[in-house]
Order: sequence, then C-alpha cells, then structure tokens
Amino acid sequence: MYRKASYGSELDQLIQLLSKLPGLGPRSARRAALQLIKRKDSIMRPLSTALAEVAEHVNPCSTCGNLDTSDPCHICEGDRRDRTTICVVEDVADLWALERSGTYRGLYHVIGGTLSALDGVGPDDLNISPLIERAREDLVTEVIIATNATVDGQTTAHYITDRLKDSSVTVTRLAHGVPVGGELDYLDDGTLTAAMSSRRPF
Amino acid sequence: MYRKASYGSELDQLIQLLSKLPGLGPRSARRAALQLIKRKDSIMRPLSTALAEVAEHVNPCSTCGNLDTSDPCHICEGDRRDRTTICVVEDVADLWALERSGTYRGLYHVIGGTLSALDGVGPDDLNISPLIERAREDLVTEVIIATNATVDGQTTAHYITDRLKDSSVTVTRLAHGVPVGGELDYLDDGTLTAAMSSRRPF
Repeated sequence: MYRKASYGSELDQLIQLLSKLPGLGPRSARRAALQLIKRKDSIMRPLSTALAEVAEHVNPCSTCGNLDTSDPCHICEGDRRDRTTICVVEDVADLWALERSGTYRGLYHVIGGTLSALDGVGPDDLNISPLIERAREDLVTEVIIATNATVDGQTTAHYITDRLKDSSVTVTRLAHGVPVGGELDYLDDGTLTAAMSSRRPF
Repeated sequence: MYRKASYGSELDQLIQLLSKLPGLGPRSARRAALQLIKRKDSIMRPLSTALAEVAEHVNPCSTCGNLDTSDPCHICEGDRRDRTTICVVEDVADLWALERSGTYRGLYHVIGGTLSALDGVGPDDLNISPLIERAREDLVTEVIIATNATVDGQTTAHYITDRLKDSSVTVTRLAHGVPVGGELDYLDDGTLTAAMSSRRPF
C-alpha cells in the first residue's frame, strides 16, 4: 500500500512548514506549495529571501518592543513623535493597527500578551516592569492603555493602572462604544451599556 | 498623518509576499509574519531554506508532469508501478490525493488544467498531445480519466476520449456515486441519478 503521501522529502518539508502558519492547514499548505512552484521567480525565491532577511535583521526594539531593523526602532527615534505619551498595546499587530489609523503620534509600549491565570501568564512573563520604569521619566505625562476589550485584556489594564498609581502620569484608556458603521441591533449589551453611559453632547 | 502603514521595508515586503499565498489575505499575512518572527529558528529560517531548496530542485517530470527532484519522477521510474495503466489528472494536487488513497499503482499524466472557453484555455495550452503519444506505446492498455466532475473537467474528459479513439487503449473514467460517509439528503440530484443508474448487486 502507498498510504504514506510521498511528495519527495523537500516538498514534504516545505508543506509541513507552511501548514504551521496561522490560517493554513494541511490542504491549503499543499495548495500554497503548488502555487509557489508555479510562480518560482515571482513569489517563491523572493519569499525565501525575504524570510532570511527579516530573520536576520528584524528584532524587537529594546525600548518599546516594536519590531524593526533598527534598535531603538523608528518610532522611538522618530523626531516627529510626541514623547510625552506612551500607548500600551498587547501585541505588535495592535501597534500596527493604531499606526494604520493615523490617529496617534506618541510612543508605544508592547507588553507581549495579557495576564492569564488559565495559561499561567503572570506579570513577570510580560514586558510590564520596563513600562513602569519608562513612565517615571520626566518627559512622560500620559500612559494610554490600549489592551483589547477582552476579559484578560481588561484584567491586564487594571493591573498596569495599579502599578502606575505611584507615578505622576495620567493613565487613560480607549473609549468603549458603538463601532463606526456598526448597527445597534448587532451589538452586545456590554457595548451598548458602555456607549450609553459615555454619551456625549451632540 | 501616518496613513501609510510602515512596518519597515523588509517586513512590508515579507507581508506582501505572504499575502499572495492562497488562503492568506493581508490580515492573516501580518499575523503569519509576526508568528514567524516569534519562531525564527523553528519555522522562519527552515522555511526560507525549504523554499530555496524546492525552487532549486523540484521540477515537473518531463514524462508525466508530476513534481519531483528527479526527472523522470519517482513514480515514472518506480519498479513496482503498473506500466500498463495511465491515470489522467488535472493537477498535481489530484495526483497527490490519489497517491494518499493508496488505491492506484499505475502511472499518471498531469494535463495541467481543464479546457475552458471562458478562460480561453484550448487543447494546445494543456499537456494533452504528449498523453496521446504515451497512449500509443505498446505497454499501455488502459487510460483512466480522473478529471474533476465539474463541467470543464467533464468537457476535457470527453475531448481526451475523442482524441484517444484511434489508439488501441481502453478508456475508463472514475465512477460517480454517493461519497462514502455521505448522506443522501445532502446530495445533489446529479449525484443521486448517477448513483442510482450505476447501482450494483449487493
């Protein structure tokens, strides 16, 4: 019997690695491998090079945790950034989302996750103590906590607020409310309650 | 304003290439890039190497169109394969599916797609003429047409059958019927009609 699929060991290895990417299972990894082979010069070889480049040159910023080729990163070093404000995010993806929105021009601090009793993630597993140090710097006047509006995210926000209460900074958090473009009928009660209690003059 | 997302040019390039893989959009490409950076040694560098290896060494077999590091491929060269039978498939993914099932031990022929008036794919765009040549070899007695049961797949099957009618081989096709584990209530009329008209003694 030929039960074991044998695409050749190189292809097997490639498919196995591709299937570890988030969003790709075994079947889509096989499809991706075939598509890559069909487009060797336009995607496959450039992707190989890009992976090696990023693995070599991109590292977390030792100040804020952002990913960049330089350390400190281009945001920490940027001469047009507002150095009085630090925005705390869970993950680099959240930092990217805020940058895309173009709404914020201060500094960031990536804590690298949330506190989670279930997953055994404690304060020492996150990048929180360096944040407390940064908040003590004279220039910093405000820390905006932009963790996700999940239970773990909010627990982490409360923990950080608590740790910051001895410093002189103002601690704020993102507003809860109706998402722009959202329909009331589809929103959960928690969001509606938050939106109602934070209502503002028209 | 900072409208343009700026992750650094290396990361931008990587995310853009990843988003071209089937099954990954811009958002999942960003997530994949972050996960890769978190697991540089276990996934990122090996994936870069695997891509380069496959791009360098894996090519279509000049006989059957299967992808392999050797040409002819390990199936065409395999000394335990039945050389009297050629199974015609649309794509290498279909060949892999048949190999995984372990049901077939003859040779293959990958035609590389289907005829499609809509997409302007004619017989000369597919790997069909070499199949007709192979079917003329003395050893070959049967050609199994295993194109997909789609309109284009069936059109292509009819076209190939027509081209093969001057040769001495028997032309067969995969049976249509109820998929194993399938529930009648969820099947389309075409499948039920095919299953009924091809019914067999119990």
